[in-house]
Amino acid sequence: MSHPHPDLTLPPPLPEGGLRIVPLGGLGEVGRNMAVLEHAGRLLVIDCGVLFPEDHQPGVDLILPDFDYIRDRLDDIEAIVLTHGHEDHIGAVPYLLRLRRDIPLVGSQLTLAFVEAKLKEHRITPVTLPVREGQVEQLGVFGCEFIAVNHSIPDALAVAVRTAAGTVLHTGDFKMDQLPLDGRITDLRAFSRLGEEGVDLFMVDSTNAEVPGFVTPEREIGPVLDQVFAESTGRVVVASFASHVHRVQQVIDAAVANERKVALVGRSMVRNMGIAAELGYLKVPDGVLVDQKQIERLADDRVVLMCTGSQGEPMAALSRIANNDHKVTVGPGDTVVLASSLIPGNENAVFRVINGLMRLGARVVHSGNAKVHVSGHASAGELLYCYNILRPRNVMPVHGEVRHLIANAALAVKTGVPADRVVLAEDGVVVDLVDGRARVVGAVPCGYVYVDGSSVGELTDAELKDRRILGDEGFVSIFAVVSSQDGKVLAGPQIHARGVAEQDEVFEEVLPQLTAALEDAVRTGATDTHQLQQVMRRVVGRWVSNRLRRRPMIIPVIVEA
Amino acid sequence: MSHPHPDLTLPPPLPEGGLRIVPLGGLGEVGRNMAVLEHAGRLLVIDCGVLFPEDHQPGVDLILPDFDYIRDRLDDIEAIVLTHGHEDHIGAVPYLLRLRRDIPLVGSQLTLAFVEAKLKEHRITPVTLPVREGQVEQLGVFGCEFIAVNHSIPDALAVAVRTAAGTVLHTGDFKMDQLPLDGRITDLRAFSRLGEEGVDLFMVDSTNAEVPGFVTPEREIGPVLDQVFAESTGRVVVASFASHVHRVQQVIDAAVANERKVALVGRSMVRNMGIAAELGYLKVPDGVLVDQKQIERLADDRVVLMCTGSQGEPMAALSRIANNDHKVTVGPGDTVVLASSLIPGNENAVFRVINGLMRLGARVVHSGNAKVHVSGHASAGELLYCYNILRPRNVMPVHGEVRHLIANAALAVKTGVPADRVVLAEDGVVVDLVDGRARVVGAVPCGYVYVDGSSVGELTDAELKDRRILGDEGFVSIFAVVSSQDGKVLAGPQIHARGVAEQDEVFEEVLPQLTAALEDAVRTGATDTHQLQQVMRRVVGRWVSNRLRRRPMIIPVIVEA
Repeated sequence: MSHPHPDLTLPPPLPEGGLRIVPLGGLGEVGRNMAVLEHAGRLLVIDCGVLFPEDHQPGVDLILPDFDYIRDRLDDIEAIVLTHGHEDHIGAVPYLLRLRRDIPLVGSQLTLAFVEAKLKEHRITPVTLPVREGQVEQLGVFGCEFIAVNHSIPDALAVAVRTAAGTVLHTGDFKMDQLPLDGRITDLRAFSRLGEEGVDLFMVDSTNAEVPGFVTPEREIGPVLDQVFAESTGRVVVASFASHVHRVQQVIDAAVANERKVALVGRSMVRNMGIAAELGYLKVPDGVLVDQKQIERLADDRVVLMCTGSQGEPMAALSRIANNDHKVTVGPGDTVVLASSLIPGNENAVFRVINGLMRLGARVVHSGNAKVHVSGHASAGELLYCYNILRPRNVMPVHGEVRHLIANAALAVKTGVPADRVVLAEDGVVVDLVDGRARVVGAVPCGYVYVDGSSVGELTDAELKDRRILGDEGFVSIFAVVSSQDGKVLAGPQIHARGVAEQDEVFEEVLPQLTAALEDAVRTGATDTHQLQQVMRRVVGRWVSNRLRRRPMIIPVIVEA
Repeated sequence: MSHPHPDLTLPPPLPEGGLRIVPLGGLGEVGRNMAVLEHAGRLLVIDCGVLFPEDHQPGVDLILPDFDYIRDRLDDIEAIVLTHGHEDHIGAVPYLLRLRRDIPLVGSQLTLAFVEAKLKEHRITPVTLPVREGQVEQLGVFGCEFIAVNHSIPDALAVAVRTAAGTVLHTGDFKMDQLPLDGRITDLRAFSRLGEEGVDLFMVDSTNAEVPGFVTPEREIGPVLDQVFAESTGRVVVASFASHVHRVQQVIDAAVANERKVALVGRSMVRNMGIAAELGYLKVPDGVLVDQKQIERLADDRVVLMCTGSQGEPMAALSRIANNDHKVTVGPGDTVVLASSLIPGNENAVFRVINGLMRLGARVVHSGNAKVHVSGHASAGELLYCYNILRPRNVMPVHGEVRHLIANAALAVKTGVPADRVVLAEDGVVVDLVDGRARVVGAVPCGYVYVDGSSVGELTDAELKDRRILGDEGFVSIFAVVSSQDGKVLAGPQIHARGVAEQDEVFEEVLPQLTAALEDAVRTGATDTHQLQQVMRRVVGRWVSNRLRRRPMIIPVIVEA
């Protein structure tokens, strides 16, 4: 298999009759999944999700796929196919629809319901085309067949795209739970049929390709929850992802079995489960759900709180409960269940929550000490089944960091896909399927697009670097007023600092030096504001470095008066 | 068992004949281990280590134990017993010796060699008392017996402290590898003898108390390394902790078996292994070690680089190799081994390194895909052995976050220690052993002491909070020069921002509003600098919040001229 090449140039035009695939997100990271397929001058978008920032991207709200490649071709987009309703697959739809509102959204009932609720907050009413598994829709030049797949949200779909250039099968996110809660398995019969027919390019979820074996069935969590609930003599609090309908179903079922009422806590949890219940994906027996206020009137051992915050998000209910800073309190006899994975990067925050809860005396059950979570993504064992059933002519691992993509590529090769037919691409890398053969043909610019307050795509890497410096080192600002006539210092210099040596007295020692340096500079001919600012920066920077052993950002300002 | 109580008050005086234990670090966190024992007016310190900061403590270099409790009693300190040479047990010694240079340091040969090398950098020559396992030393009123324990650094010791109040056994960090590389096992015969004699208080390492079962023997890593080296057709780079003498020994052995030379890379690695080799803890066959420059002259398949950086530290060799920003390059055919644990909080950084190396084409072997690391701390199974052999009268779990301490306490109770004899304490909580019974009797103030550049203990939580705000949101500074006569605006206002909206033009829109607000304030009688600064903060703050949807730090400055 070929490794992504840093020196790729812009691709040549797509040969007539060929199919071009350009991933604009999700290849090189877990999140902001988006692929653009091009054939005969028309485009089909598969998924349009967001990525959540890491700690080297401080203050960033969200990261979007880079739409630059399609910005001038919005009218060529036939539709956006949404494989399922997770944020990393639908979260960026509002930002794409801001560019062209009437791009049709194609997806299953639940997926569209989730995206429509999100779009409502952005005051957008989309054009939608609901589809079901087994359904075939001709979307312009793209013949799309939708196939049931099992994932950690109901109603997920894979999509097979038929064009004159060949057939592409895109799995979306999936696993192969053989005993799913809703009986809706990944449709391997359809995969077999497609394999017989011939799959020219298999775009396949890589998230768990490094993990050997098979994912435990979701339904094995139910009895564990049941037992945990039965053992708890006090309150039960369960935290999970706000879209995990089947996990919430199992919590409700365990609550019913243990004669407890359930209160949903958290805006996204309430909204999503409301949609899921209304559409019949979540079955709620009468009288089981209560609202949070009613909880206080029930005995502790008759109560389950179902909330978000399983990743240690500081403002979520769970963190505030752990900090003893929430109406709901927990103590000895109470049980908190984190029925979720631990997303890399969140460890410290999650352990802070666990420590806080345990300090209060609560029992904490999590995936580290009990089987209360299973992944939503196919492990290596399941991926091998797919490769063997499909026998694809070309493979392109999608959805994952480089390590995941490479692990997935290695699995494909193990099942007999020729190594030179396994395409390792990252975001922006252009892959053409021509004459039954997929090849990397170039790359288009594809950066991180930050949502930062009201700005989209304006935050630069330089600003992010400044934030990191400010966060690590703080800043020192220096002001002086100089005469616009003779450059004499009329007022100041003043020094203020934040995040380092915040007491202004600290700097008193350097002020005489600074004044002397400024006067000296003026005497020797420097009257230019910029030159004087450089003098201030140099004198204070050197002093701070020697005296405080810190390297804060230094902002010198000369005001002329 | 009793949970640590937030409402503890200062303890009463220690009853005559009693023994007081005050943990000043390490109980509630993994790091900065330090315990103070007091008897008959004298103090004995066990360990004095540092804690490494988490991401909510940006820019901090190190965190020390809080010495406030002993600051006025330095002359009462008999000695500092150092259980082993890891940073989290010896790293704060220089800072304590700065307060009183002649406190004797007691420890094994290797431990003292490591701490002396560190003290040399601080220009301190300590008073030392080297001890060996089996040795008994009367340190004032404290009768100390040193006992061999096995850990991830050679020459670690537990210490039994006998006083008139009873016997305390402190394990330091330990595990119970039954086939350690150097044959030096944790001395369970000594534990048995102490158990027969009677252990009044058992202070025991909690780090792995949540982990079921037993730690795999260190020597099982050797054959894995050997195989990985044999399979590599190119360079081998191994990253590990700079003090893990036995891990480096196994790398050297595997290199010799595969006819490769080894270069040590990184200042701490070179220094520590130099000490270990000189003292005979590391056995280096002649001609195996080469220096980094010679590597370039050797064939790729004849080379092993042994370096630090296994936690993704951005400036370490490994990160720079992964970024293709180091003299040493890796590519297809080369193998990189991360022979280390993944310390929580470092996941994103480590995965960035792994992705970078894989993108370059290297094979990356780590604890997630091969048995190339084992922990240095006893798991639950081993801890049960200890409790059963010792049958301690009272137990105080040490070294760990709350979750670890509680898990360890639960193990003690399972083996039959009465729950009310298991003392759960956090940093600063005072435990008295009186009449054979250990009890929490109060707490002393015990904060985080930050080393931040040249400052020790000066960085406040307010400054850290400012750093977090600066890092997340950036800052906006506003200046204006006003007349000291009539309060008229003479120059400005000027607005500059960093980390948010860095182009000054962004703020042009708000400048007229700001000037108007200032003039209005002056007209209605506000001439006070502080009032005018408040006006500037309010106008710009509101505009930034509405317009940019950000909440940067706002620093208004009025200069009078």
